[in-house]
Amino acid sequence: DDQFDVGKEKAKVCMTCHGENGISSIESYPNLRGQKMTYMISSLKSYQSRERSGGLAVLMHQQADALSEQDIADISYYYSKLGTDSE
Amino acid sequence: DDQFDVGKEKAKVCMTCHGENGISSIESYPNLRGQKMTYMISSLKSYQSRERSGGLAVLMHQQADALSEQDIADISYYYSKLGTDSE
Repeated sequence: DDQFDVGKEKAKVCMTCHGENGISSIESYPNLRGQKMTYMISSLKSYQSRERSGGLAVLMHQQADALSEQDIADISYYYSKLGTDSE
Repeated sequence: DDQFDVGKEKAKVCMTCHGENGISSIESYPNLRGQKMTYMISSLKSYQSRERSGGLAVLMHQQADALSEQDIADISYYYSKLGTDSE
């Protein structure tokens, strides 16, 4: 599944905080494993638009700002498939 | 586990959108099953403080506004345990 592999590559930077298998080791950072793709896309965009601000959201602003529309789709696709049988 | 049972009761209202087992049936609504407790608490509070605004966040404002600090803790505890062996 090409998009899964492409997304996995692009998600390398996410793994530092969100864990290598999408389960974060830090209590205040969300698990992303198997999360809904559409939700992840809208979340990443709300960091870009600053509709999510304050607190830990600020950490995500710089991360999200570095992502193109295609990056967001690929990374969100990857996490949505992680841990499901269609990995 | 009392807090799990109390949280489950309080989470009844969440199940409509987030699914009975924490896996939502709607692509734009996040799965909450096994999510990090601390992250869920800060997310719910950021809806209350409106640090999360725009788009679908608006739906969550009224939900979060109805919750006390204890409700938030219990519901977040419940979801963090859901699907783990310490259910």
